[in-house]
Amino acid sequence: MAEAETPNRSPEIRKDKIHNRWVLFSPARSRRPSDFKAKSNPQPNNQTECPFCAGNEHECAPEIFRVPADSTNDWKIRVIQNLYPAVSRELDFQNPVSLVGDVAVSGFGFHDVVIESPVHSVNLSDLSPAQVGEVLLTCKKRIEQLRSCDSIKYVQVFKNHGASAGASMSHSHSQMIALPIVPPMVSARLDSMMEYYKQTGKCSLCDIQPNELLIAESAHFISLVPFAATFAFEIWIIPRDHSSHFHEIDSEKAVDLGGLLKLMFLKMSLQLNNPPFNLLIHTSPFQDDPSYAPSTHWFLQIAPHLSGVGGFEIATGCYINPVFPEDAAKILRDVRISNNNI
Amino acid sequence: MAEAETPNRSPEIRKDKIHNRWVLFSPARSRRPSDFKAKSNPQPNNQTECPFCAGNEHECAPEIFRVPADSTNDWKIRVIQNLYPAVSRELDFQNPVSLVGDVAVSGFGFHDVVIESPVHSVNLSDLSPAQVGEVLLTCKKRIEQLRSCDSIKYVQVFKNHGASAGASMSHSHSQMIALPIVPPMVSARLDSMMEYYKQTGKCSLCDIQPNELLIAESAHFISLVPFAATFAFEIWIIPRDHSSHFHEIDSEKAVDLGGLLKLMFLKMSLQLNNPPFNLLIHTSPFQDDPSYAPSTHWFLQIAPHLSGVGGFEIATGCYINPVFPEDAAKILRDVRISNNNI
Repeated sequence: MAEAETPNRSPEIRKDKIHNRWVLFSPARSRRPSDFKAKSNPQPNNQTECPFCAGNEHECAPEIFRVPADSTNDWKIRVIQNLYPAVSRELDFQNPVSLVGDVAVSGFGFHDVVIESPVHSVNLSDLSPAQVGEVLLTCKKRIEQLRSCDSIKYVQVFKNHGASAGASMSHSHSQMIALPIVPPMVSARLDSMMEYYKQTGKCSLCDIQPNELLIAESAHFISLVPFAATFAFEIWIIPRDHSSHFHEIDSEKAVDLGGLLKLMFLKMSLQLNNPPFNLLIHTSPFQDDPSYAPSTHWFLQIAPHLSGVGGFEIATGCYINPVFPEDAAKILRDVRISNNNI
Repeated sequence: MAEAETPNRSPEIRKDKIHNRWVLFSPARSRRPSDFKAKSNPQPNNQTECPFCAGNEHECAPEIFRVPADSTNDWKIRVIQNLYPAVSRELDFQNPVSLVGDVAVSGFGFHDVVIESPVHSVNLSDLSPAQVGEVLLTCKKRIEQLRSCDSIKYVQVFKNHGASAGASMSHSHSQMIALPIVPPMVSARLDSMMEYYKQTGKCSLCDIQPNELLIAESAHFISLVPFAATFAFEIWIIPRDHSSHFHEIDSEKAVDLGGLLKLMFLKMSLQLNNPPFNLLIHTSPFQDDPSYAPSTHWFLQIAPHLSGVGGFEIATGCYINPVFPEDAAKILRDVRISNNNI
């Protein structure tokens, strides 16, 4: 297991230039960074009679498509509607509710689920790089379908692993919510990246110098702990080539990304004791202003939940991170994963 | 116990004009609003040997002051340093760290704790309105001390109740973090309120018409569920008179606010089964531009934690609330509290 250097660090307040927000790094609140583990990671309590398992398809909300398309009981991935959607595909966006001026719109949108395996106990990290790549290409395909709906402005893909990270089903799955608005944090990210571009003439993610923050590299991607990581042991995976939209990914890059993602899950699980986490795809709105193209660059974020979020974070939007990114990166870099697992 | 009307509502996306963010209201994800309860609210596991209890003062970080000032073992409230501070009062703000350009400053600041009672098992809701008022006046006094430090720009007062709301000590206490920066969410709030003022000539909180969102009123304050509540059963308490800074509160208003706050805690505890929650004081920066004075108005937010926060919220800044504010307000309005408890 990796051992941490624990230099005598003073608290520091760092600016995340991608999201234009501040993070407080406070080593006094931490054990040794290498001692950081998830205390427990309870899974949602639905091991029996899981509707996501092969054979129980009739218990799910309607299917949108499956992979392979012509499969029957031998499907590998299914995209279905969410039975408890946060937004409704049945509302007419042409008739938005307008309760008080311009402050309410109808909750039109799509909320879908990607079942990543037919087998209950299989996690993404158990799949091969090619299989993880296939899950990513399934997300790409569904995003391209949603893109054909003019009212949809942005699609957020996210995975909640573990009950305390928001999962309500333990069977491995991701979700995507397609929205008729651009979420505020997405706008803030686009504006910050544009600001960097105006100042430097460069894309902020193309220009990143990981140095001591690097964890690993693949042919088309790098993984690192961001300079102003919001969460302890947070990981970003960034495409080397400039690209605004996740759905521009091709098959070769998807398999390459699948391998790096799997490696990150294995390192995180081994070092941090299978922590609850969120996996997020940060991409660009569909109909974005072409002037944003040179400055926007999609990436993946893995956010482990190792300490709780309290009132300070909710009130201020400033997060407190007890582990310096340089320490987290060194620890994750040094976790050895046997080739048999990759 | 209050019974809810559950009209057949469609999902709706509402804009919080104070924070300039969107909230998704999705009744499909909810039980009946009146069935909403905290499943459990585990307290941090430190019932024995609590350093915050009277008699254990020597186990705490240094005291800043106590109430009454000349008390010995018979203190009512103590303000102490946080033993594990998120920021450090020992750093020299004149020599900020500057690792990479303008993206890091030293973690200078103050992180204090207000111990609200000498008795371990006493919660704020067990105190009299005058005693709750005294806790509020203690916060005011400490904020006024912090204000004398030129480097401090903003003080965030917050209370975490219950382990899943971020509390690490079960003995009733609040915290305050004094920062050398204005947090991004505070800037966003000030800008949104200024925007409303420019458009209407009025302060957005002076102009609020609670109507069906009202829960209760006192001489100087109103309590309501905000139109675009981020959390199910979220409560705001707003001063009737325009005031930018919490520390402008006087003794009479503090006791009045103490009574209304106690009433909200009792209603919430009875209806929602003593849920984990955060209490937040949203005030203005110290050295704010005088042009903001007509548009900024302090208020309290109570944020119960009844459902988890997942990847969607972390990625987008959009929250999903399964309970419409009108339903939450009616339920909280109808909870009867015996006068003996007030």
